[in-house]
Amino acid sequence: MKNNDTENNGVRFGSRQAFNKALLNPASVALIGASSNQKKNTARPLRFMQKHGFDGDIYPVNPSTEHISGVKTFSSIEQLPDGVDHAFVMIDSASVNGVIEQCAARGIGMVTIYSDGFAEAGEEGQHKQQILNETARKLGVRVLGPNSIGLANVHSGAVISVNAAFEMENLVPGDIGIISQSGSMMGSLMSRAAARGFGFSHLVSVGNESDITVGEILDAMVDDDATKVILLFLETLRDAPTLGRALQRARKAGKPVIAYKLGRSEQGDALSQSHTGAIAGNDAAVDAFFRAYGVIRVTMLEALFEVAPLAARYAKLRPQNHGDEPVRLAVITTTGGGAATVVDNLGLRGFVAVAPPAGFVSHMASRGLNIRQTPVIDLTLAASSEQYQDLLQEILQTDWCDAVLCIAGSSAQFHPQYVVQPILNAVSTEHGNRKPLVAFLSPEATASLQLLQENGIAAFRTPESCADALAAFFVPQENTQCEQAQPVQLPAGCPATGNLSEPEAMALFQDLGIDTVQYDMVQPQAAAHTIDYPVVLKVVSREILHKTEAGGVRVGIDSDEALARALDKMADDVKTHVPQAEIDGYMVQKMEGRLIELLLGYRDDPLVGPTVMLGAGGITAELMPDFSLRLAPVNEQTAWQMIREVRQTQLVRGYRQLPEGDCHALARAIVAFSHLALIESQPVLEAEINPLFVRQDGVVAVDAVVRLQEKSQLQ
Amino acid sequence: MKNNDTENNGVRFGSRQAFNKALLNPASVALIGASSNQKKNTARPLRFMQKHGFDGDIYPVNPSTEHISGVKTFSSIEQLPDGVDHAFVMIDSASVNGVIEQCAARGIGMVTIYSDGFAEAGEEGQHKQQILNETARKLGVRVLGPNSIGLANVHSGAVISVNAAFEMENLVPGDIGIISQSGSMMGSLMSRAAARGFGFSHLVSVGNESDITVGEILDAMVDDDATKVILLFLETLRDAPTLGRALQRARKAGKPVIAYKLGRSEQGDALSQSHTGAIAGNDAAVDAFFRAYGVIRVTMLEALFEVAPLAARYAKLRPQNHGDEPVRLAVITTTGGGAATVVDNLGLRGFVAVAPPAGFVSHMASRGLNIRQTPVIDLTLAASSEQYQDLLQEILQTDWCDAVLCIAGSSAQFHPQYVVQPILNAVSTEHGNRKPLVAFLSPEATASLQLLQENGIAAFRTPESCADALAAFFVPQENTQCEQAQPVQLPAGCPATGNLSEPEAMALFQDLGIDTVQYDMVQPQAAAHTIDYPVVLKVVSREILHKTEAGGVRVGIDSDEALARALDKMADDVKTHVPQAEIDGYMVQKMEGRLIELLLGYRDDPLVGPTVMLGAGGITAELMPDFSLRLAPVNEQTAWQMIREVRQTQLVRGYRQLPEGDCHALARAIVAFSHLALIESQPVLEAEINPLFVRQDGVVAVDAVVRLQEKSQLQ
Repeated sequence: MKNNDTENNGVRFGSRQAFNKALLNPASVALIGASSNQKKNTARPLRFMQKHGFDGDIYPVNPSTEHISGVKTFSSIEQLPDGVDHAFVMIDSASVNGVIEQCAARGIGMVTIYSDGFAEAGEEGQHKQQILNETARKLGVRVLGPNSIGLANVHSGAVISVNAAFEMENLVPGDIGIISQSGSMMGSLMSRAAARGFGFSHLVSVGNESDITVGEILDAMVDDDATKVILLFLETLRDAPTLGRALQRARKAGKPVIAYKLGRSEQGDALSQSHTGAIAGNDAAVDAFFRAYGVIRVTMLEALFEVAPLAARYAKLRPQNHGDEPVRLAVITTTGGGAATVVDNLGLRGFVAVAPPAGFVSHMASRGLNIRQTPVIDLTLAASSEQYQDLLQEILQTDWCDAVLCIAGSSAQFHPQYVVQPILNAVSTEHGNRKPLVAFLSPEATASLQLLQENGIAAFRTPESCADALAAFFVPQENTQCEQAQPVQLPAGCPATGNLSEPEAMALFQDLGIDTVQYDMVQPQAAAHTIDYPVVLKVVSREILHKTEAGGVRVGIDSDEALARALDKMADDVKTHVPQAEIDGYMVQKMEGRLIELLLGYRDDPLVGPTVMLGAGGITAELMPDFSLRLAPVNEQTAWQMIREVRQTQLVRGYRQLPEGDCHALARAIVAFSHLALIESQPVLEAEINPLFVRQDGVVAVDAVVRLQEKSQLQ
Repeated sequence: MKNNDTENNGVRFGSRQAFNKALLNPASVALIGASSNQKKNTARPLRFMQKHGFDGDIYPVNPSTEHISGVKTFSSIEQLPDGVDHAFVMIDSASVNGVIEQCAARGIGMVTIYSDGFAEAGEEGQHKQQILNETARKLGVRVLGPNSIGLANVHSGAVISVNAAFEMENLVPGDIGIISQSGSMMGSLMSRAAARGFGFSHLVSVGNESDITVGEILDAMVDDDATKVILLFLETLRDAPTLGRALQRARKAGKPVIAYKLGRSEQGDALSQSHTGAIAGNDAAVDAFFRAYGVIRVTMLEALFEVAPLAARYAKLRPQNHGDEPVRLAVITTTGGGAATVVDNLGLRGFVAVAPPAGFVSHMASRGLNIRQTPVIDLTLAASSEQYQDLLQEILQTDWCDAVLCIAGSSAQFHPQYVVQPILNAVSTEHGNRKPLVAFLSPEATASLQLLQENGIAAFRTPESCADALAAFFVPQENTQCEQAQPVQLPAGCPATGNLSEPEAMALFQDLGIDTVQYDMVQPQAAAHTIDYPVVLKVVSREILHKTEAGGVRVGIDSDEALARALDKMADDVKTHVPQAEIDGYMVQKMEGRLIELLLGYRDDPLVGPTVMLGAGGITAELMPDFSLRLAPVNEQTAWQMIREVRQTQLVRGYRQLPEGDCHALARAIVAFSHLALIESQPVLEAEINPLFVRQDGVVAVDAVVRLQEKSQLQ
C-alpha cells in the first residue's frame, strides 16, 4: 500500500498546505552528500541554487569539508538546524535507510532521494525499496523517489536537482508545472520549451514513486497559485485512484492537464517498464483513463508544451461530446502552400477546413474586404493588418466554425509584428475568446513564435504538432456520470472466485439487462428441449475455456436425431481432449440471425481498473484492430461514442443502404455490461460476450464468459 | 503536349549543357519589370543578387528610371545587350505574351515568369497560359512558370526570385537542390534548413509548369556538380514520364531524391489542386510512382531536409527488398527516457530495437566495456568518449543490426564535442560506413545538431521526424524489371473502345495466364450446360455495370428446375431495371470454394499511368482500407511484397494454424493481371477481378470487368 491517503500527511505535516510547501516551496533545503568537487553531479544542486538565486537556506551535509562555494557545510544530519523543509539525498543506496531515520530524528518530513539501485534495478533493489518504504512510513517521512533526479521551483530558485539542464544561464519562470517519470526527459523538455520562451513554475522528477506518486504532486500543483497548466511525461501509471482524484480537482480548478505517454508501440511500452521497474501497461486502457478524466493527450513530444497556451486559454471551450461530425476550422493564411500543408495534416486527423458561408463573404465585402468562398481564406497581398484583424474579429463571433487557425508565411520571419499584432488585437476584444484560435508559422520564425506564446496564443513550429495539438484538444471531455451507481450482486449460487459457468454468466448478463440467447440444458440420453431447430450445441464446464478447441461446439444441428448423435460425439471428444474437466452438461442454443457480430469485453486493468471494450468480431478484427475502450461503468452517451468509434458498426448505421441494426439496444447493452464494475461482493476480473449479435430488433449475447478475481487479488 | 523532349532544347540551346546553364547557372540575368521602389516585391531580385554577391551581369528593364541601386536600367527588352542567359518577368499577365516575343527577338531562350493570373486562376487564365505556351514553343523559348516565385543559385548568388526568404543576411551554400511546387514553402523550407546549417545549391519554384516541369529541372540537377541530393516539395505530379526518366538518371548518378507531397488527406489533396490548377491526384498512385523510382518519401515537413545526410551518405545501403522481417536497430543512448521516446515512435513504424547477442556483449567486455543485453544499450555515466567510439566502431562491423541510432541527453546541449566526436570518429574509420548511422538529441541542442549535420551525419530535432526519416529510407527500392515486356493483344472480336463483356474479359484474363471460373453461356428456354450444381447465374451485357443492383446475379442454384426458374425471373428483372440494355446472354458459373476473397484492380491513372492494386475483398474492406498499389507491370518479387502488404492475406499465410492459400499462384496472377499495361493496340483504362478467390490449390477469378480507353483519351 502506498501512502496516498491525505491523512498520512498529518504525521509530519499538519495540513495539505504544509505538505505542499515542503514539496514545492521549501524555504530551507539540506543537501545530503553534496560534493565540493564541481565536476560531480552531487555538486550541482548547490551550484544551481546559487546560480538561480534561491533565497532560502541551503545546508550541504558533507563531513569532509567546512565550506562548499562559500556555503557552510554540516558534518552530519544530526547537526542540521531545526526546521529544515526538504532534504535531498545523494548517497549510496545502502545508506539511504539510515538517512531516513536521521532525517526523521531531526524533524525533516520531506525527503527526495536521488540515489538509485532500488526497484528499477531488479529484485534486490525492490527489496531495498520495500524496506525504505516501511521505514519512511513508520517514521512519517514522505519520500520523493528514490531514483529521482530531483525537483525545482523556478520562481524561488529552489533547484533541488542534479539535472544538467539546470546549467542553463537563465531559467524562465512561468505558469507551467511539469511532472515527469523520466528525469532526463524533464530536462530535455525544459530546455526545448525554454528555447521557445515557455516558462515553468515547478519541475518534478518522480523517480520510482515509492511513496509520493504523480497524483499527489499533481494535487499539490492544483493548489499552487503559480501553476496554471500541468504537463505530464509518463512511462506508466502508478496509483491511478490518487491520480484520478487529483485530475478531478484539476478539472474543477480549471487547470488543464496535458500528457505525453510512452508505450504507444509494444516495444516502447516494454522499454518504459524495463528501465523504470513499472508493470506492463496496456496503452489503450491508459488512453481510456485519460479520456475519463479529461487529460489532453498529445502524441508528439513538442506538442506537450506547445499545446499549453491553447489548453490554458480555452479550457472552458473543450467539447463535451460530439457526434459523427468533424471539427470545423476557419483557416486564414498568407501562404497557400503553408495552409495546404497544415490542412493536409489536419485532414488526416478528421478535421475539416470550412469555406465561409456566402452571407459571411458578403458581410466582409460590406466591411471592405473581399474574400473567396474557399476552405482556406488566402489573404496573401490582399489585406492590410487592420483588415486581417477585422476578419479575425468577425470570424470569432460567427457560428460556422469551431476554431480558427491562422497561418503566416515569410512575414512571420521578417515582420513578426505584422503577423502577430492583428491576432493579439483580435483575441483581446470582447468576443475574442469565443472560440479557440491557434497559429502556425510556415518559415523559421522564432520571434513570432515567442511573441504569440508570451501573449498566450498557441503557436506551432511544425504542421504535424499543430494537428496533433488541435486533435488532442478537441477530444470530447465525456460526461462520465452514470445513472446507475447501485452495487450489483452476482446471481445466487455463483462461486466466490474463478470462472462462472456459461449459464451462470448468462444469468448475470440477464440480471444486468442484456438479452441472451434462448437455451435449454441437456445431457446425453436426455436431450429433450424446447428450442426450434436449427440449434447450436455447446459443452458447459467452468473448466473448459476454449470450447471449440476441445470439440465442445457444434452449429447447424437440424433434428432430434442429429442432436442425439452430436451430443454423444461431443461427450466423447471433450473427454478425449480434456479428460479431467468436470462437465456441468450441454447447452442447446437457438441459432440466432444477425446483421453483424461484435465483441463486448470487460477487464479489471491492473493499471487503471475496470474497463469496457466494444470491438468488431471475427478473425479479421485481430488483423486490423477496430475497437473502443473506456473506463467502466459508462453511461449511454459514452456508449454511443464507442459505437461510433468502431468502424464495423457503420454496416448497421446506414452505410450504403444496408439494413440498420438496433444501435439503441446496443448502447443499452454496453452500459449494462459495463455495470460489471459495480459488483462489489465478488469482483469480476474479466468478462466477454463474443459474439454479440446485432439485429434489426435488438442485440443478443450468444456466448458468455465471466472470470472472478482470485482471492489473492482481493484486498 | 508539353515541351519535354530534349530535342526541343535545340531551338535555342544547342545542348543539354547550354539549357542547364541558362536555367541553373546563368551568367547574365534580365529583370523585366524591376522596380526602383524598394518596398515592392519586384525590387527584390536586384536587391537579393547584390546582397548575395551575384558575380554575373544584372540588367533591370524599367523605362521610368535610369538606375536602380546603382545598376543601369534598360528602357526596353529590345535594348538589352546580346547574350542574356535568363530573363525574369515581373509584369502584368496581359503583357507576358509580348515579352516572350521580345525575348525571342533578343535571343533570350530562358524565361522565368513570376506573373500570375494563368492556369491557377480559372478558365480565362488557362486560355492565357495556352496562348503563352504556343508562343513560347513556336519561338523556341523555354519557360519556367508562370506563377513561379523564381529560382536561385546559392553558390553564384543568382537569386532570380521575389521570395522574401532571400532577405536573410547570409545564404548558406551547400549541396542540396530543392524543387518546389509551392513558392512560399520553398522559402519556408530554406529558412528552416538554413537555421540548422543546411546549405543549398539551387532552389527552384516551378509555378504552373506550363513548359519546364519538375522532371526537367531534376534532370538538370542530376548533371549539376554542386548538387548531391535533391528535395521535392510537391502538390501534384505533372508529366510523370519526364520525371520518371529523370529519377532513373538520378538513381544511376547516386543522387538521392527525397519528396514531401501534399494530399495524404482528401482535403489536403483538394486544396493543392485548387490553388495550383493541378488535376485531382490519387495519393496512393503517386506513392506507387515514388516507390517505383526509389524516391524517399517523408511525411513530416522538416524530415524533408533532415533526412538528406542519411540519404546522401548511405545511398548505396538502401534495401532492395525485404520480407516480413522488421528493420533491426542498434540503439545506443545516454538517456533512457530519450531512447524510449524514439524507440516508441520507431516501433509504431515497424522497426525493432535489438539487443546485442551474447557474443557481442562478451566481445565488448574483453575490450573493457560492460554493456547489458537489452534492446537499448544505455551508456549513461558508464563509458568514456573512447569507449563510446569503440562500441560504435564494433557495432558498425557486426551483422546483428541493420542500422545504428545514437541518442544523446543533456551532454548534447552543454558539451557537443563529447557527444559528437565519438560518432564522427567512428564513422570515419575503415568500416565506418558499413551501415547507416543517425542521431537524435533529446534536449535543445542546436550546436550538436549543426556539428553532426556539417559532418554529414543525419541528426534529428524530434523523435517523430527521426522515425519518419528512417522509415522512408528503409522502404525497399524494388527491382522493377519485368521479365515479360512483350506487347499483349486483346482476344479476337473485342471492341476497340468501351466495356468488354464478361466472357471477353474472362478470355483476356485467361490469355494473360489467370485461372477463371468455369462457365457455360445459356439463354432462357435453352439452359443446358455442363457445370456441376450448385451454380451461380449472371446476366451478360456490356451495358450493365452493376449486375447485382439490376437483379442480374443469383447464387446457390442447385438443380435444372431451379435454374430454369431463375433464368426466367432474371430476364424479367433485368428488363424491368435496365430496359434498354442489350443482353448477350446468361452465364452459368461453378460455385467455387475459397479460403479468402481478394480484389485485383487495374487503372491507367491520369497522373502516373498504369497501376495495379491488390486489396481485401468484401464490404468491410471499404470501411478499413487494406490494399497495396504499384505501377504496372510488376514482377513476381514486387507481387510478393504486395501480398505481404495486404493484411487480410495473413489469413492464408499461416496465421493461427489456418489452412494456407496458394500465394505462389496469387503472386503469378498479380503479375499476369499487371500485364494489362502491355496492351498497346486498345489500351485498358480500368479492369477489375472482384472477387478473386484464393484457394489451397490456386486462385480463380470469378468475375471480370475490363473497360478500354475511349477514343478521345487515346493520343
